[in-house]
Amino acid sequence: MRRLLFFAFLLTLVAAPLGADEPLLQGFTNPSSTAERQWEQKFRALPSPQLMRDYMQRLSARPHHVGSPYDKANAEWILSKFKEFGWDAHIETFEVLFPTPKERLVEMVEPTRFTAKMQEPPVAGDPTSGQTSEQLPTYNAYSIDGDVTAPLVFVNYGLPEDYDQLQRLGVSAKGAIVIAKYGHSWRGIKPKVAGEHGAIGCIIYSDPRDDGYFEDNTFPQGPTRPAEGVQRGSVMDFASSNPGDPLTPGIGATPNAKRLSVKEAPSITKIPVLPISYGDAQPLLAALQGPVAPEAWRGALPITYHVGPGPAKVHLVIKSNWDIKPVNDVIAKIPGSTQPDEWIVRGNHHDGWVNGADDPISAQVDMLEEARALGQLRKQGWKPKRTIIYAAWDGEEPMLLGSTEWAEEHGDELRQHAVAYINTDGNGRGYLGVEGSHTLEHFMNGVARDIQDPESGVSVWQRDEMGRIAQAKSDEDRKKIRDRADLRMGALGSGTDYTTFVDHLGVASLNLGYGGEDPDAGIYHSIYDDFYWYTHFSDTNFVYGKALAQTAGTAVMRLADADLLPFDFSDFADTMQLYLTQLKKLAQDKRNEAIERDRELDDGLFKAVNDPRRPKVAPPREEVPPYLNFAPLENAVAQLDRSAKRYQETLQKAWAAPQGLPAATLDGLNQKLMQSERRLTDDAGLPRRSWYKHMIYAPGVYSGYGAKTMPGVREGIEQKRWPEANAEIVRVAKVLENESALIDSATDELAAAK
Amino acid sequence: MRRLLFFAFLLTLVAAPLGADEPLLQGFTNPSSTAERQWEQKFRALPSPQLMRDYMQRLSARPHHVGSPYDKANAEWILSKFKEFGWDAHIETFEVLFPTPKERLVEMVEPTRFTAKMQEPPVAGDPTSGQTSEQLPTYNAYSIDGDVTAPLVFVNYGLPEDYDQLQRLGVSAKGAIVIAKYGHSWRGIKPKVAGEHGAIGCIIYSDPRDDGYFEDNTFPQGPTRPAEGVQRGSVMDFASSNPGDPLTPGIGATPNAKRLSVKEAPSITKIPVLPISYGDAQPLLAALQGPVAPEAWRGALPITYHVGPGPAKVHLVIKSNWDIKPVNDVIAKIPGSTQPDEWIVRGNHHDGWVNGADDPISAQVDMLEEARALGQLRKQGWKPKRTIIYAAWDGEEPMLLGSTEWAEEHGDELRQHAVAYINTDGNGRGYLGVEGSHTLEHFMNGVARDIQDPESGVSVWQRDEMGRIAQAKSDEDRKKIRDRADLRMGALGSGTDYTTFVDHLGVASLNLGYGGEDPDAGIYHSIYDDFYWYTHFSDTNFVYGKALAQTAGTAVMRLADADLLPFDFSDFADTMQLYLTQLKKLAQDKRNEAIERDRELDDGLFKAVNDPRRPKVAPPREEVPPYLNFAPLENAVAQLDRSAKRYQETLQKAWAAPQGLPAATLDGLNQKLMQSERRLTDDAGLPRRSWYKHMIYAPGVYSGYGAKTMPGVREGIEQKRWPEANAEIVRVAKVLENESALIDSATDELAAAK
Repeated sequence: MRRLLFFAFLLTLVAAPLGADEPLLQGFTNPSSTAERQWEQKFRALPSPQLMRDYMQRLSARPHHVGSPYDKANAEWILSKFKEFGWDAHIETFEVLFPTPKERLVEMVEPTRFTAKMQEPPVAGDPTSGQTSEQLPTYNAYSIDGDVTAPLVFVNYGLPEDYDQLQRLGVSAKGAIVIAKYGHSWRGIKPKVAGEHGAIGCIIYSDPRDDGYFEDNTFPQGPTRPAEGVQRGSVMDFASSNPGDPLTPGIGATPNAKRLSVKEAPSITKIPVLPISYGDAQPLLAALQGPVAPEAWRGALPITYHVGPGPAKVHLVIKSNWDIKPVNDVIAKIPGSTQPDEWIVRGNHHDGWVNGADDPISAQVDMLEEARALGQLRKQGWKPKRTIIYAAWDGEEPMLLGSTEWAEEHGDELRQHAVAYINTDGNGRGYLGVEGSHTLEHFMNGVARDIQDPESGVSVWQRDEMGRIAQAKSDEDRKKIRDRADLRMGALGSGTDYTTFVDHLGVASLNLGYGGEDPDAGIYHSIYDDFYWYTHFSDTNFVYGKALAQTAGTAVMRLADADLLPFDFSDFADTMQLYLTQLKKLAQDKRNEAIERDRELDDGLFKAVNDPRRPKVAPPREEVPPYLNFAPLENAVAQLDRSAKRYQETLQKAWAAPQGLPAATLDGLNQKLMQSERRLTDDAGLPRRSWYKHMIYAPGVYSGYGAKTMPGVREGIEQKRWPEANAEIVRVAKVLENESALIDSATDELAAAK
Repeated sequence: MRRLLFFAFLLTLVAAPLGADEPLLQGFTNPSSTAERQWEQKFRALPSPQLMRDYMQRLSARPHHVGSPYDKANAEWILSKFKEFGWDAHIETFEVLFPTPKERLVEMVEPTRFTAKMQEPPVAGDPTSGQTSEQLPTYNAYSIDGDVTAPLVFVNYGLPEDYDQLQRLGVSAKGAIVIAKYGHSWRGIKPKVAGEHGAIGCIIYSDPRDDGYFEDNTFPQGPTRPAEGVQRGSVMDFASSNPGDPLTPGIGATPNAKRLSVKEAPSITKIPVLPISYGDAQPLLAALQGPVAPEAWRGALPITYHVGPGPAKVHLVIKSNWDIKPVNDVIAKIPGSTQPDEWIVRGNHHDGWVNGADDPISAQVDMLEEARALGQLRKQGWKPKRTIIYAAWDGEEPMLLGSTEWAEEHGDELRQHAVAYINTDGNGRGYLGVEGSHTLEHFMNGVARDIQDPESGVSVWQRDEMGRIAQAKSDEDRKKIRDRADLRMGALGSGTDYTTFVDHLGVASLNLGYGGEDPDAGIYHSIYDDFYWYTHFSDTNFVYGKALAQTAGTAVMRLADADLLPFDFSDFADTMQLYLTQLKKLAQDKRNEAIERDRELDDGLFKAVNDPRRPKVAPPREEVPPYLNFAPLENAVAQLDRSAKRYQETLQKAWAAPQGLPAATLDGLNQKLMQSERRLTDDAGLPRRSWYKHMIYAPGVYSGYGAKTMPGVREGIEQKRWPEANAEIVRVAKVLENESALIDSATDELAAAK
């Protein structure tokens, strides 16, 4: 999983309404709105913190990574719970490539010798930390095998801009082994960019500045990473190619599926990579000389951070067993009573890197409580209009294996039937974080309004608004938050199981979770992410577990029960206008930067300010970017805005009409609305990564987790591909025109029904 | 001394002119400009890096603090040099209070025992670091005697805003011993503010984040502070009362001067204070619990920074010998040939805390080379019009003792005769830093244009402009720098010997020095500030020593030789407009902040976002500040701008007239111009600190080193004294009106001379 950004989301200014004069729920007629509120109220009383705690203790009792006995046992136990809750459930198994290490070595061979321990010690008092025989060793899955020796270079977080700074310092990564800090990008970006700059190996370590003692006391005295703690994790290059099984891109990894060879798999790293602790990193970093690292690069180790290269020389070995392992997805259904062919899909993975109490069990247990509660409602007579599918995914950690293979295998059905996908992947204390498709922004604002924050007693949207105001840096920012009826929602990047749904299939998706109060959990992907840690340092009494079950479950129910699917295009159009504005500014900034840099080169600035004791290389001259033709996108966004407004006005009138809308009209409208996210895809996909079909959202090729919105255009500008950026503007405009046409056709249908 | 801010200054865009078509020097007629340029060229060839190195080795060979044998020996040696250079020189001695410690103790008594070493170890290879018998122990001069035991509280840098944050954390300093980091204010502010918040003792330490291993390798491998290095320094509360001898405020500390008792002295601290190293601080800080310190407070020690209070409990003892000691100022003169009653004063102190190679000897040796060079010019026939006085001050480190007592003793003469005071106090590599009276901003831009930077080969003003552009954060900032003919100059705060000249007497002053390339010197005020350190890690070949001698010496010569004193009021008026704009914005920001805070309190924001695991106290409700009446100042600045423009235009016409200006007119004008800075003073002084007479510049009561411009108004707003701020606006307006009247009268005299 990756952590959500908090304050990334939320909602209208009115206090949560109570009683009979409550406004109609979006998409519900008067009687059905009242009924829905009653069912939801019953639902939200049901999730039990005690049961969540019990489930967590059970599910995190032993290491449960892909292919392990306890992973299988957990899948079967989850299956039994769904069945017990009255769901129609089964396990669906895929066969995937999952490498595990057979040889790992990081040793310094010059100027002194030091061998990294790469072993997390058990902690007294933490019962599961001592299950050493079942724990996966510390490694980065899908690193290529390698045995390399080279001088070491420190590259900060290992992002492209870090290598620009290295160039200014006159230091090259060519032929070197780089050491990069975890953070500020998805980890797989680090070996990718290192390889592109000629490095032959990559070490990633967790600096205590980011999730160690700088943040809070270390485990077990506090929640942060101890000196020998290591972040495991996948380094598969999914953003440039595809997530899921590397051998079966685009298709389900069924036993007989056509497979690539390991050598052909595009998503395996080009250079070997291993993660280490800050205990192991300190001697390596302390042995570096060369320029002092730029201030922003320095961490919290008690050393002077130098960049190198050398004199530290490092020997790095990683060799894996490249085995095919099963992933066991648990799939459970409640059939829809009137619209069984409209599916609401909800998922959370169950596999962990080790015991995985926080990631992913803390939200798996919420999802189980949603399932139990929905099962009880059914027994009390609740009949959801639409089909509800709950999925406990396996193999998320290696790179979304279970969800991707299932969604690829069922791609045609999902394109036809899926209304939305709602994801969670771990939970903590604090603020509701929401990322998602902006056609659902208004809807999720509505849900958040009806959930009470367990700590403050105000609604979670009110708390989120207050939190955003408290964090805002200027009166202008505060005013923007206060003036907008809905709080803004972040876009979906990647790093968890919504990816294939939204990016490959065009299913409107949401990703939910609470957090933001506790510091970054330094036990992430380590043996210390366990029941002991979670029940001492996170949502210890599971009140936010209950809140998340209430939030996700309410969203599922509203989508399943609505008369008219609650997609809204006003917030969507507003968001597209925002992205357009950002892109125009980005293009202008790039022009200005190039002009300024070239002027400074002409003026001899870099020579004039050079410090001969700390010499810097002048940056290369930049071609001044051309003006881009944003007109197609400007026109498309303007059209979208008109279409959205007209839909909204027409809908309000139609909804207010005493006779209501005929069932056939509603059916037709729902069919259209369900397709609205699909309209934002283009089957040709994004440049150089055709698996990614969505033209509005994608993980960044150089950010991984972080979303790039209107990615073809944005990355075109960022990567200085000007003709491509111009061409992508046209393609984005085209999907927005298609969206407007769909909205217009829905509006016409509404108007005709009056 | 304190360090100058670099990029705080500099100059016009034209390349430095060469040859016969050079523009006229400001204030020089055609023939005298040519002659001046020739003399200056000769002058600038003379300063010798080798001699500077020799002087430094001599002057820093042994510890030379106030009252030490080597301090006296240095004064006598400097005197002998001035005499050798042909100057009329003598030593002027004052008798001042200078406490030195007889008992020092910092020990932790709970939860474990630890006694701070408070001893800087000698370093192998550094010959003077082992002169332990002559070194002053590590202490803060003018701390009151005390013996206190109390829980420890960490207060960041110990500024007023840090205590606001403590209040939010629910932590009080009342009855506690506080531990504060060095930096971000003058050190004496820390015990002052701590005392105001009820603390009973204060420890100050140097965090490695600020001048230790975080910045660069530690001494002797690199230039930064080693683990046991300690910053000595004065904590006299000079900004609230006065610098100089605490027993003789406002008058010279001559043997028979009327003295206060030590108990009556207003500038001695109210609570005991001692400085320690980060080696000694780490066990104390590591023993703190309570809230984790806010992120910006955390340093580079490998610990989690907590705020306390306790459980660490500390016992602090400081007891001093409160002795009267001599300070020996060396005063040297070259009499003026035609205007002997117009004095150009130039100074740099010679006392150090220990060996003091960087501070102050690195600039003392430049001043000596200026003196030698000027002596040679005289032998070659150069006759400065005005009298030149060079002063090697004693007792700067305890708190400007030598310069203050001399300037107070000679106050009447200086008010009558002083044209300007030019200060230096240490030198390094990099950019010319200039702070000063803005009537001299255009003049100093002119000087900087004619000095070549030894590293880049461009003029020092061009390098400074390039440095500013390289540091600028936005296109707008870059445009402002490029568009303004003169580079902006910082205002004078305090912390070195110009203070009494500008703030108490109203003598236009400048403070000069090179720096900005090397990191903050972690040897500051320690035994490691010595010849070994300076010749390994600073301006090792003294090329910037030569540049500083060229810069200060050129300024002295131009002021001494000018036909018309080169005061300029256009940049001054522009600067006053800038300050006025800043003050209006400050007042508006304070209003907006109060309105916003009260709204957030009304909305229940602080309750809504409170984290029960890390509870925060809501801030107190704020009275919304009234609108202030800036009109008097707006009118005064507008009038000043008109007067400055008219003077400039009239002067240009008069200067261009073929007949030139009659000598009598020039004499009259010079008399007026010399008084222009005095017009900016008000004998009643600033509120609650009447020693400070300047209405435009002062050290901040809560910043110490940092300048507060239009201080009565600015601190009135900052300290929420609204009626006082309104009253001070009128007083600042009044001195600007007086300045305009002086300028107008000069303009009339110029116009009449045509």
